[in-house]
Amino acid sequence: MNATPLGIADADRMATKLKALSDPTRLRVLSHVVAQGCDSVCACDLIDVLDISQPTISHHLKKLVDAGLLTREQRGRWAHYTVVRETFAELSRFLSLD
Amino acid sequence: MNATPLGIADADRMATKLKALSDPTRLRVLSHVVAQGCDSVCACDLIDVLDISQPTISHHLKKLVDAGLLTREQRGRWAHYTVVRETFAELSRFLSLD
Repeated sequence: MNATPLGIADADRMATKLKALSDPTRLRVLSHVVAQGCDSVCACDLIDVLDISQPTISHHLKKLVDAGLLTREQRGRWAHYTVVRETFAELSRFLSLD
Repeated sequence: MNATPLGIADADRMATKLKALSDPTRLRVLSHVVAQGCDSVCACDLIDVLDISQPTISHHLKKLVDAGLLTREQRGRWAHYTVVRETFAELSRFLSLD
């Protein structure tokens, strides 16, 4: 944020992304994707490390994909997820006051 | 976020702050406080520029204070608000992948 006030359309767009981040389970899911290298992380690995059921993790992963925070690629039985670095960079810059 | 996965307590704490940010009106309120210099901005000025009723803006400002994003100081009739720079810095760092 800076000296130019946020317009309504930009506020809506940023609020949608921040809403996807405003859940502790989703933050832990994202954190594990990041900790595993950000790239093509299997949902099966997330289920193992987070000890969350498959339907629950699928629900949260869908919200993260819909918000543009992750992309999804199906590989055989399992979906794999990759961090959208541009979205995180945009949010980090948005919350910076420097 | 980095190579160390987020624990449950930290995930709860960050999600609470991000939830306060996940509303477009609150983002516009914050953006106007930042645009007016971050320091001791009168609620009266926010009502004028945002064209939002006093009860609505008071509701949103309370949520931002409760989440540690703003501090509030009463001066006569009006409350004045100051940005908590440390909270924004923490959130910006948290969403950085660098």
